[in-house]
Amino acid sequence: MAGSKNTRSPVSRFSPAALLALIASAFPAAGAFAQDKHAPAPLSIARQGAFEAGGSELGEGANSTSCDHGHVEYQIPVRPRATALFLWHSSTAAMWQRRWDGGEGYQSIFLRRGFPTYIWDGPRVGRANYGCEAYAYTPLPGRDAESFVGWRLGPTFGKWFPGVQFPTGDTDAWNQAARARYAEFDTVANAQLEAAAAANALERIGKAVLVTNSAGGLRAMLTALRSDNVAAIVAYETPGFVFPEGEGPQLAPGKFGPVYVSAGEFRKLTRFPIQLVWGDNLDRSPLWKNNFEIARSWVEIVNRHGGKAEILHLPDRGLKGNTHIPFADMNNVAVADLLSEFLRRHRLDGRVHAPHRR
Amino acid sequence: MAGSKNTRSPVSRFSPAALLALIASAFPAAGAFAQDKHAPAPLSIARQGAFEAGGSELGEGANSTSCDHGHVEYQIPVRPRATALFLWHSSTAAMWQRRWDGGEGYQSIFLRRGFPTYIWDGPRVGRANYGCEAYAYTPLPGRDAESFVGWRLGPTFGKWFPGVQFPTGDTDAWNQAARARYAEFDTVANAQLEAAAAANALERIGKAVLVTNSAGGLRAMLTALRSDNVAAIVAYETPGFVFPEGEGPQLAPGKFGPVYVSAGEFRKLTRFPIQLVWGDNLDRSPLWKNNFEIARSWVEIVNRHGGKAEILHLPDRGLKGNTHIPFADMNNVAVADLLSEFLRRHRLDGRVHAPHRR
Repeated sequence: MAGSKNTRSPVSRFSPAALLALIASAFPAAGAFAQDKHAPAPLSIARQGAFEAGGSELGEGANSTSCDHGHVEYQIPVRPRATALFLWHSSTAAMWQRRWDGGEGYQSIFLRRGFPTYIWDGPRVGRANYGCEAYAYTPLPGRDAESFVGWRLGPTFGKWFPGVQFPTGDTDAWNQAARARYAEFDTVANAQLEAAAAANALERIGKAVLVTNSAGGLRAMLTALRSDNVAAIVAYETPGFVFPEGEGPQLAPGKFGPVYVSAGEFRKLTRFPIQLVWGDNLDRSPLWKNNFEIARSWVEIVNRHGGKAEILHLPDRGLKGNTHIPFADMNNVAVADLLSEFLRRHRLDGRVHAPHRR
Repeated sequence: MAGSKNTRSPVSRFSPAALLALIASAFPAAGAFAQDKHAPAPLSIARQGAFEAGGSELGEGANSTSCDHGHVEYQIPVRPRATALFLWHSSTAAMWQRRWDGGEGYQSIFLRRGFPTYIWDGPRVGRANYGCEAYAYTPLPGRDAESFVGWRLGPTFGKWFPGVQFPTGDTDAWNQAARARYAEFDTVANAQLEAAAAANALERIGKAVLVTNSAGGLRAMLTALRSDNVAAIVAYETPGFVFPEGEGPQLAPGKFGPVYVSAGEFRKLTRFPIQLVWGDNLDRSPLWKNNFEIARSWVEIVNRHGGKAEILHLPDRGLKGNTHIPFADMNNVAVADLLSEFLRRHRLDGRVHAPHRR
């Protein structure tokens, strides 16, 4: 299993950017920007904004209604790296924007490291929820417990795993987590719709690493079948997969697939590096243990077809207690360091060349 | 009508921050931060993130479901001003994040001017769309035309007002605008629900100016009845109002109210300055002309009760062609300069005192 062995010294878990931040934090801030000597340096954002991508129209002329587009919120740091990070949640943008305790999320951590970030609300989701089809919304009873157990915060609702990377003593943190999810549409048809819109967004963005959580993983694989702009996929705990017909487990299609495609189509997933990241306590969750095992067989199949896929099991790199959403966990800087390492190893961290003076 | 006369010289339309940006843009950028000599200086963000506010729960224990909270996305610039801007859209956060042509929106413009910004998705809206009640969603036929005419881009769908502050020659701009709206709930019950959650958000944020568009105006007034943290309201083209019982137009309640309250309750709206801002071409839209006239009578009533309300009719200050969403218009920097002027006049632009060194 590629990538699962700790072949680097512990110090490699600190990226150059993290080391610089560590050094900077050791000295009092000075001058006009002084806020708090313990605060990190300010983020330097060259530009930021939002745009809509893809979509359809119902009706024509005076009867037209625009719908089924996705929504992108972006920030471009100064002196950016050439490859962007496209942050694809499973129906919660907030998880990219904060750690469980309200500390910095991946969005800010990777802006500090020089990566343009694009947060994605796919069609019908969040700020892109003007869909082309009618539907009936019903709040699901017991959704809090579903999140708690599904995210592997503990074995049963309210009981924490020992050492879990969550601020278990912070009463507001769980309230914030439970409310971060919004309405979602876990069907393969919606995954295809989101993938089509994401491929459209990438035409505007250019080369990007699709960094996904949970149901976003299947969507990223489907996007790579439609776009040449996928530079890599880093999927945190995907329950969904694209398989070549006749290979891998033969499963009845569920809400996360699998989706079976021709071998020719499947080979599109061998053009770029893929890392499937997994947290801790998998043995204590039959659902996620099963998905972890499918992920291992998927990686073998991708590599047999000539790909560059690997598993990153965080406990194998010394990170303990990670949940289903490792990038929001209390040790998310260490988790981010492993993403930085992946990006460096695959030369996805180069800077944009300085423009010529006009 | 207070505030509607041009009592300042044209140069006052440029804030100190805008002048600095103008000066900076006249010189090539230098050093590591050089991107493009025409680009504005980078935004310096001390911290940013997201949190959820307020809300309810359905069920208990293992059956509980968190719902009806609002969602806040925030950015705090370095050396911030003490009073925040709470940006309350009528179901489109994107309009605060970009000009019609994709240029900088109010979020970035006011971060440059030192104001913390908080973008709000109220309960059941956008990234806070996990509501406590079931509902049926249906895409509305002809929504594009409804937006085009409702936003006063022109008299009929596809026909532009002469001189409208929209990039009429940019074919993608209208597509982007039409897709920026998401599902909305224009009922007084939802406005009250949103106001309750917003009052909760302000407990965490502290003093803030509620800067609203369209249906957000009524919501801001309702919030001020529930919170002492409203430092001011600046409402761009509100169709909804809170009146004291027995005063003002006696209208049947519609989806934007009005809401009638006791005189004692109403006096809560006299504690802080209020500016109701209106764009151009009102005479060519019966709907908005009517709302503009109601706004004038509302301002008189607030001031008769001891308040500090005023109308800002943009054409009276030399700004022509503004739409229903002036802060996204092509002249949004000039519109922002008038907001800066309002904030300065009411001493809402002071800086946070530097913390003592520990």
